[in-house]
Amino acid sequence: MTTPRSLTQRQWIYRKQPLAEITPEHYQLVEQRLDTSLSANEVLIEARYFSVDPYMRIGQSSKPTYDSDAHPLDTVQAGTVVAQVLVSSSPAFAPGDWVSAYSGWQTHAKVNAAGLTLIDPQQAPVTTALGVLGMPGRTAWFGLTESGKPHAGEVVVVSGAAGAVGSLVAQFAKRHGARVLGIAGGAAKCDWLRDTLKLDWAVDYKAFADADALSADIKRLTGGVDVYFDNVGGIITDAVIPLINRRARIVICGQISQYSGGLENPQQGPRLLHHLLYQRATIQGMLARDYLHRMDEMRRIVGPWVKAGEIIFEETIIEGFEQLPHALNSLFGGEHRGKLMVKA
Amino acid sequence: MTTPRSLTQRQWIYRKQPLAEITPEHYQLVEQRLDTSLSANEVLIEARYFSVDPYMRIGQSSKPTYDSDAHPLDTVQAGTVVAQVLVSSSPAFAPGDWVSAYSGWQTHAKVNAAGLTLIDPQQAPVTTALGVLGMPGRTAWFGLTESGKPHAGEVVVVSGAAGAVGSLVAQFAKRHGARVLGIAGGAAKCDWLRDTLKLDWAVDYKAFADADALSADIKRLTGGVDVYFDNVGGIITDAVIPLINRRARIVICGQISQYSGGLENPQQGPRLLHHLLYQRATIQGMLARDYLHRMDEMRRIVGPWVKAGEIIFEETIIEGFEQLPHALNSLFGGEHRGKLMVKA
Repeated sequence: MTTPRSLTQRQWIYRKQPLAEITPEHYQLVEQRLDTSLSANEVLIEARYFSVDPYMRIGQSSKPTYDSDAHPLDTVQAGTVVAQVLVSSSPAFAPGDWVSAYSGWQTHAKVNAAGLTLIDPQQAPVTTALGVLGMPGRTAWFGLTESGKPHAGEVVVVSGAAGAVGSLVAQFAKRHGARVLGIAGGAAKCDWLRDTLKLDWAVDYKAFADADALSADIKRLTGGVDVYFDNVGGIITDAVIPLINRRARIVICGQISQYSGGLENPQQGPRLLHHLLYQRATIQGMLARDYLHRMDEMRRIVGPWVKAGEIIFEETIIEGFEQLPHALNSLFGGEHRGKLMVKA
Repeated sequence: MTTPRSLTQRQWIYRKQPLAEITPEHYQLVEQRLDTSLSANEVLIEARYFSVDPYMRIGQSSKPTYDSDAHPLDTVQAGTVVAQVLVSSSPAFAPGDWVSAYSGWQTHAKVNAAGLTLIDPQQAPVTTALGVLGMPGRTAWFGLTESGKPHAGEVVVVSGAAGAVGSLVAQFAKRHGARVLGIAGGAAKCDWLRDTLKLDWAVDYKAFADADALSADIKRLTGGVDVYFDNVGGIITDAVIPLINRRARIVICGQISQYSGGLENPQQGPRLLHHLLYQRATIQGMLARDYLHRMDEMRRIVGPWVKAGEIIFEETIIEGFEQLPHALNSLFGGEHRGKLMVKA
């Protein structure tokens, strides 16, 4: 097959900082011709699956976050994709190869070979590079093992338990011998947590009038919490903190309930730090990027579990490149299960 | 000198749970005759100095704290004293010996010898057993070294910096080579922090309209915070959390701003846990009792500094046993400096 001299490249350009929900005014879809000629070591890739992740919304905060600057306006939305090689001037990649790349929301990109990671489709579905064997898996594994430090017999509570990271944390905690309670929104997700992930308990936070009522139910079920792996924050965290046991570990992995405005203008909530004092407990924030250099460790352990079918890694795949901004926004509405991605 | 068959014992009885400030209705002063005869190994002591500490107010919370039950009503208020031995049936103690004991708010007590710690008045003033060489010193030393883990060149911020624990934390942090900012209420305390404790910076939180203004000033002075040793909580903590540096350590040693009601009905404050995520920072609660078995380590290091006059340990001594409830309440008004105690 010969490659045409140029092809149509579609891109989602980040145009305007959202203050609350993401709506059509914040992104613009553009289309242009892309010359397919390559410099040495460049690879032309065609994206097949686009990751949408909560961290993208953090990058849009107008205040400093983990990065001092927000995602620049009028550039392609950054993000990880699973792609196939169309043309390569690198000896390391051949047309047809599956790769992952941080090339963002564009259908095609020319990427230096150093920025590509080869995916072996024989080992696991290629989409797992965006989920269980990618960033979410790394987050779940190291957040739980390095900050949560669960022990057999302990109670681990996971918020956002039906999500990409939470559903893995919950399963990894079960493998450590912990008793695991998953918190999610809606009865269907909770059924899935109990019936498919085999968690000890699942609690639908939407079924409770307030944090106190939610707290009472978690207490009734678990008696107390040794590890709280938090992806959500807000009233769910308000409900869990008063239940911590002696020397509990709270892992702040995400605060998704706060991303649509709360990072700029913090919501109000109860002051609960005295519980940390009472229980000599710890809250620790963690970020996946700090464990990038340890990806091989996670894959060495989790990879065989995935291959053996011992880990449930549900994927919610939205069809259509044009759905990307909508898909990102839907992360915060909470209707999906497992890893959310868009298929071009 | 012969001991009389009995003597007048005065006691402060804890009668009623305070919901906000401590007022005269919460304690009752009683007086009775105490028979001076002793069982084997008992010691009759006369208290000379009574400690008043913020933890006493935690013990009055109607919700579980570090103890599952509140301080029992209609009993002598618990607490540590520095006392002298009047009569002893233990070979380890002789009349006139200085001791510390957890005998509470009563002028005299019969205590089993196992509950007494001998104080050597040649080593340091006896009152230091309630301060720098006692529980507050232990709290400051281990809270800072085990949870705060300061390094030379780092910025350490201490709230309640003019208090019994805070003033020691600040000095211990200076000895680690850190740059130290103390937060206290009022210009006089701040002058003392700068001029006498030789801190790098002192900030009067009462001089600011709100947490944002306080935060801006701490940022202007320090640039950012590596260790935040918190005795106070509330708006001071709101001001500091957004300033934490990468991998900052926040030590929750006290939340004194919350003790007069906030433990039962939490105050509202801004949700700030996303900063922990951004900076991969840690909040850790600590309690002095967890380091009781390591008192010798602290004394081995801090004792020589005290003896050499290298540590400022200011004491505020209120005269009169009858002042005890008032003295406890005054901890929360914040007019004293250093260790607050009552002299019988």
